[in-house]
Amino acid sequence: MTESQNVDAVSFDDIEAARERLDDETVVKRTPVERSTSLDAMTGGEVHLKMEHLQWTGSFKTRGAYNKISRCLEEGDVGRVVAASAGNHAQGVALAATTLGVDATIVMPKGAPQAKVDATRGYGADVELVGADFREAMAHARGLVDEETEFVHAYDDPDIVAGQGTLGIEMYEDLPEVDTVVVPIGGGGLISGIATAFAEHSPETRIVGVQAAGAATVPDSLRKGDPVSLESVNTIADGIATGGISDVTLSLIEAHVDEVVTVTDGEIARAVLLLLERAKQVVEGAGAASVAAILSDELDVRGETVMPLLSGGNLDMTMLQTVLVHALTDREQLLRLRVRITDRPGKMEEVSGIIAEHGANIRAVQHDRSAPELDVGEAYLVFQVETSGSSQSREIIRTVRDHGYEVRHVNA
Amino acid sequence: MTESQNVDAVSFDDIEAARERLDDETVVKRTPVERSTSLDAMTGGEVHLKMEHLQWTGSFKTRGAYNKISRCLEEGDVGRVVAASAGNHAQGVALAATTLGVDATIVMPKGAPQAKVDATRGYGADVELVGADFREAMAHARGLVDEETEFVHAYDDPDIVAGQGTLGIEMYEDLPEVDTVVVPIGGGGLISGIATAFAEHSPETRIVGVQAAGAATVPDSLRKGDPVSLESVNTIADGIATGGISDVTLSLIEAHVDEVVTVTDGEIARAVLLLLERAKQVVEGAGAASVAAILSDELDVRGETVMPLLSGGNLDMTMLQTVLVHALTDREQLLRLRVRITDRPGKMEEVSGIIAEHGANIRAVQHDRSAPELDVGEAYLVFQVETSGSSQSREIIRTVRDHGYEVRHVNA
Repeated sequence: MTESQNVDAVSFDDIEAARERLDDETVVKRTPVERSTSLDAMTGGEVHLKMEHLQWTGSFKTRGAYNKISRCLEEGDVGRVVAASAGNHAQGVALAATTLGVDATIVMPKGAPQAKVDATRGYGADVELVGADFREAMAHARGLVDEETEFVHAYDDPDIVAGQGTLGIEMYEDLPEVDTVVVPIGGGGLISGIATAFAEHSPETRIVGVQAAGAATVPDSLRKGDPVSLESVNTIADGIATGGISDVTLSLIEAHVDEVVTVTDGEIARAVLLLLERAKQVVEGAGAASVAAILSDELDVRGETVMPLLSGGNLDMTMLQTVLVHALTDREQLLRLRVRITDRPGKMEEVSGIIAEHGANIRAVQHDRSAPELDVGEAYLVFQVETSGSSQSREIIRTVRDHGYEVRHVNA
Repeated sequence: MTESQNVDAVSFDDIEAARERLDDETVVKRTPVERSTSLDAMTGGEVHLKMEHLQWTGSFKTRGAYNKISRCLEEGDVGRVVAASAGNHAQGVALAATTLGVDATIVMPKGAPQAKVDATRGYGADVELVGADFREAMAHARGLVDEETEFVHAYDDPDIVAGQGTLGIEMYEDLPEVDTVVVPIGGGGLISGIATAFAEHSPETRIVGVQAAGAATVPDSLRKGDPVSLESVNTIADGIATGGISDVTLSLIEAHVDEVVTVTDGEIARAVLLLLERAKQVVEGAGAASVAAILSDELDVRGETVMPLLSGGNLDMTMLQTVLVHALTDREQLLRLRVRITDRPGKMEEVSGIIAEHGANIRAVQHDRSAPELDVGEAYLVFQVETSGSSQSREIIRTVRDHGYEVRHVNA
C-alpha cells in the first residue's frame, strides 16, 4: 500500500460504525473522567484523567476486538478466532468472542502471569501456553489459522484501529475543550484510532503519543518513514513493549499525531505510585505512561486543559511490589543501615534498641564479618528498617552515630 | 445523659442541616458508586461499591470536621481548632479548617507516617509531633485547648456524627432500593450518622457494622450496655483501631444498627488485594473491612442489593507492601524453596538453571550449612523465587526433584 492508502485504511466513518457496534454497556462501558488537583499543582495544567483502566477486562482492548469480530460475523461465518498475547489483548479478545458467541483460542507465552491466564480463561477462551516469549507464541498462533478461523491481531488491522478509535469520540465528548490529549503507544492501534477521531471532531486538539524509552519505535520510524522494529525491548510497561508498529498505524500517526515523547521506567514507576497514592487508582505501567509524560520535561502542559489516557489497570502484583520497593527506598521509608560493631554479645540489642526507640520497625538484620576493612573481632550489622520517611531515617542515623557507632546508609 | 438523651443527641434534622453546610463541591464531592461483577459472583448478591475513598483527603472525615467547625463559627468566634489523630481525621480537620479560614493545630504521634504528616501540613494545618502513641498525642492536644480554641474529636461529638451522616443520605439517594448497607466501625461516628439517616429514609434497609477482630469494642459494649474500651488493639486497619466508642455512638448503634460483625486481618488483607486487582482501587484496611465482611461467613448477602462503604483510601505504602508479600506468598507467586545439595561448585548453577528454564525469577539465595540433619559436606540452598503462580511453582519443584534433589517448599 502507498502511504495515502494506509491513511485511508481507517476513516472517521469506520470509527462511528464501530461505535454503533459497541453500543452495549455489557461489552464496553463509558469510563469516568476524574479531576486531579495534585496533578494540576504538579504540572500547572488542568488535568482530567480518562479512566479507561476501569473498562471491562481492565483495558481498552475489548473495543478493537469486539469491532473486529463483529465485522467478520457481518461478512460470514466465523468458526473460531485466534490471537496471541501475553496481556490485555488476550482478555479483550476472550470477552468479545464469548459475548458474540464465537470460540476463541488465545496463545500465551509460557511465562505469562497466571492471573492473566486465569482471567482469559475466565472470559471463556481456550488458552494454549506455547513458546518462551511473545514471538514464539505468535508464530504458533499463526499456525492455528485455517479457513474457518480468523486471526485477531493486536494492532495491525483497520478494524482494530477503528474499534480503539471509539475511545477518541468518547474523550472528545467528555471534554470538548481539551487542549492536549496524551496517549500511550505500543503498536500504535490505540493512538491511531483516537487521533483519527480527533482529526474529525477537533483538529486543533494537540495529540501527544508516549512511548517507553526502552521500547521506542515511533521516533525512528517517523524519521525513516518506515516501521522500525526492535530486536529487544526493556521496560516495566509490558503493555506497550511491542517493539514494532505497522504501516497503517505509522501512517496514521504521521498524519494525525502532533508529538511523540518517551519516558523512562523510573518516570513510569513514579507515575504508577502517584496514581496509587493520590488518585487511589491501580494503573499499569503502560497506562501510567501518559501521566509520566505530563510530569516529565519532555512535555509542557502549563495553562492547558489536558487529558492523559489511563489505558489499562492490569498491573501485575509482582510488578507492583517491585515499584513499591524502589519508591520506598527512594523516600528512605526502607532504610538499609550498615553499623560497624565489635562482635560481642549485647551490641545487636543496643543498636536495635536505638532504632526501636524512634518507632521504626526492623525487617531484617544480617551480619557481615568478612569485609576486608574490618579488624579481627569486628563485624558489620546490616539492618533493613521501615521508617516513616526521610526525616525519621536521618534522626535514627544521627542517634546511632551519637552512641559512638560508625554507621552508613547503604543502598539495597 | 440517659440512653434516650444519647439517641436524641443526633436527629435526622441535624444531618439535613449538616448537608446544607456541606453543599460545596470543593469541600465534599459526591463520590461515585461502581458495580462489581467479580464481587457479585463471589457473594451471590448485587454489589454496589460506594467509593468514598475518592473523597477529598481520601476519606469521609472532612464531612464531620467541616460540619463541626461551621457550627462553632455560627455560634461565635473560633480562634483555632485542635485535634489529635494519626490518620484521616487529621487531614479532614486540616482541610475543613483551612477552607473555613480557621487555624488548625493537629497533634500526631511521633511514629505517624510522614506521608500523612506532609498531607496534613499540605492542607494548611500546623502539625505537632508529640507522644509515642495516639493516647499521648491526645493528652497533649487536650492540653492545648483554651478559651479561643475548639477541640475537634474524631467521633465523640454530635456535630461530627451529623456530618458523617450526610453520607447516609447520599447512599440512600444513590441506591434507594438497597437491601443492606455495610459500614466499618472505629469510634462509631460514621455508622451512627449513616444509620440515623437510613432510619428516616428507609428503616427497612439492614445496616451492618464491621469491626476488625483485633479492635472489636462494639459487641461487648452492646452486651454490657456501656462503652467498653480496649487496653490494646491489634489490626492492620489502623483507621478503625480506636479501641473505644462513646455513649452517643453506642446508643445510636443500639437504636439503628441491625448487626455488627467482625473480620480478621487476613480477611481484610484479602479484601484490600481484591479491590486492587479487580476494582483497580486503592482502599485502606478500614475501608476494605466492609468488603471483607460480605466475603466472610459472618454475613450472608445472597440475592440482596448490597452497598459496602469504601470509607477511606489512605493506604500506607509500607502496609501495601506487607499485604502484597502475604498475598503473593499465599498464591505461591513468591516461593521459598529449600534444596539439599552436596556443597560443591556447580550445584547452585544447576538448580538456578532449572528455575530459569521455567521462566521464573530468582530474587535471593542463601546457604545454610549448619542445620543439624545435614551431613558434613552438605548444605541447603534456600531460593526465593518469583513465579507466575501455583502451577508454575509446582512444576519447578517437580523438575528440581526429577534432577535428584531433595527439595521442600518452606514458608517465608
